[in-house]
Amino acid sequence: MRSVTVFAPATVANVGSAFDVLGFAIAKPGDTVTASTTQIPGIQIKEISGDDGRLPLDPHTNTAGVSVLALLKHLRTTDPSQFGSVGIELSIEKGLPIGSGLGSSSASTVAAVVAANELLGAPLTRADLLPFAMEGERVACGAAHADNVAPALFGGFVLIRSYAPLDVVHLPTPSNLWISVVSPELELRTQDARKVLKKTVALESAISQWGNAAALVAGIYTDDVVLMGRALEDKIIEPERAQLIPGYAAAKVAALREGATGCSISGSGPSLFAFSSSESSALQIAEAMKGAFTLLSVGARSYVSQVNAQGAVVIHKK
Amino acid sequence: MRSVTVFAPATVANVGSAFDVLGFAIAKPGDTVTASTTQIPGIQIKEISGDDGRLPLDPHTNTAGVSVLALLKHLRTTDPSQFGSVGIELSIEKGLPIGSGLGSSSASTVAAVVAANELLGAPLTRADLLPFAMEGERVACGAAHADNVAPALFGGFVLIRSYAPLDVVHLPTPSNLWISVVSPELELRTQDARKVLKKTVALESAISQWGNAAALVAGIYTDDVVLMGRALEDKIIEPERAQLIPGYAAAKVAALREGATGCSISGSGPSLFAFSSSESSALQIAEAMKGAFTLLSVGARSYVSQVNAQGAVVIHKK
Repeated sequence: MRSVTVFAPATVANVGSAFDVLGFAIAKPGDTVTASTTQIPGIQIKEISGDDGRLPLDPHTNTAGVSVLALLKHLRTTDPSQFGSVGIELSIEKGLPIGSGLGSSSASTVAAVVAANELLGAPLTRADLLPFAMEGERVACGAAHADNVAPALFGGFVLIRSYAPLDVVHLPTPSNLWISVVSPELELRTQDARKVLKKTVALESAISQWGNAAALVAGIYTDDVVLMGRALEDKIIEPERAQLIPGYAAAKVAALREGATGCSISGSGPSLFAFSSSESSALQIAEAMKGAFTLLSVGARSYVSQVNAQGAVVIHKK
Repeated sequence: MRSVTVFAPATVANVGSAFDVLGFAIAKPGDTVTASTTQIPGIQIKEISGDDGRLPLDPHTNTAGVSVLALLKHLRTTDPSQFGSVGIELSIEKGLPIGSGLGSSSASTVAAVVAANELLGAPLTRADLLPFAMEGERVACGAAHADNVAPALFGGFVLIRSYAPLDVVHLPTPSNLWISVVSPELELRTQDARKVLKKTVALESAISQWGNAAALVAGIYTDDVVLMGRALEDKIIEPERAQLIPGYAAAKVAALREGATGCSISGSGPSLFAFSSSESSALQIAEAMKGAFTLLSVGARSYVSQVNAQGAVVIHKK
């Protein structure tokens, strides 16, 4: 029996003004998936740990399973002689809190797809794997989003310019940027967070949003953490979703008071992220944000890192 | 009598997806303004040429006059002993067609403000001059926009992240980019072009727009003319305004057929601009766009250049 183990990182999507189009990977937490060969053709999920029994073992409803099934179907169609009778068993180790807004389903999906591809001799490139990983997102949140999956797969800041056709733009990794992420022990479903959004927006707000999204990219290219921070300004999504997160306003104020250049909701929440330009600032900011939730008797975990430029990595192979 | 003559270039604003937030300067056409000292305190407009008598000589209603009045008022307040009795006479030479969507009022305003400041010994920096030039835009189009004025003043691609506070981001000048501009002999008033825009937009279209605006900036930083071109995609403004420009669709098709990587409306029209990566392509594209208007018996002028990185320049001083 051969096996490949892959770690895929947490990701921050809906990056302030760049809602739905930009995401980036952080160093940790992340999910670890081991793909092993088995005699039984098809995909099986052998075990999932760290999910408190909440995720399905059925590969047709598990996001990682769905993605690997889509990958295997593609490979069988293109090369039946080589892949026709392949059997893969997945073991998923959740390091990421579910429903936290840190790309939990994406991390499992990406780790699973990269591990399966590697196990099969890497017939596809990493870029080729993106559409399969996106299939898992369709199960997780009702639409084949790529703004968590792409940075989990490739690392760095990834911009999704368009879905039809899929157009992915890799942005540089700012060396000055530090990120504080705080994940309060509150759970929000992505679909609920979607529901609070209005279907139309004022043209004036939309213009402000694309001015900010454009400036955010300029900040990323120039490694200007202050510009990146102020360009997070989001007049459309954040005001609606902040209401779903008790303590959000206090945590954001705490982050800015500690010198964060900007702060917004990670994914569809309830996690928050803040930008700063040193590790010591980022650690202080994370503590201050956690403190705001503690005052409300809400526990929270914090993570501090720079942008993870690697994305998914093979950590074991035998 | 001392005098300073300044040339300020035409500018393309409403750059596709980056509607209202991005503009860039081209080499020509442009307006030339001479500011001369006079005994009579205050501002006078001595003459305007090239406007067929359509622009007002009253400095309180002429955009260039309004801007220089605002500048002079500021200088008199801050230093009454030096500027209290200053008299300036302006001569404006319009090289830019009025109402063409090429920043005609901005070019006159910027040239006038830069000339007046230079005449007075350059008490303000170029960045300081921006708010005064914006006052002219308030007269010209009902709001103090900066997306034509800023590139006419500074040159290059300029992003206006926010108006309150004013936050101007200077983007790099792509060396591979060539621009074809065609100005058909149709006249549109900016205010009329504003009227066709809906006050609200679908969230889905807005997301696509900010994905494109962000990608346009990425294209500018990476000198990627193909990405810049496809990121012009504008699902909100162009479909509404294109209807006001007879021949627009045919001219755009002609541009793309000649290899333009993207094409959109300049300012609020009726001029069009197209991106390409060589002078020879840009010349062919300009001819093809002109040809589309010729078929409709509409005359058109064309201009081909790279992005003008200089902005307003003093061309004569005595």
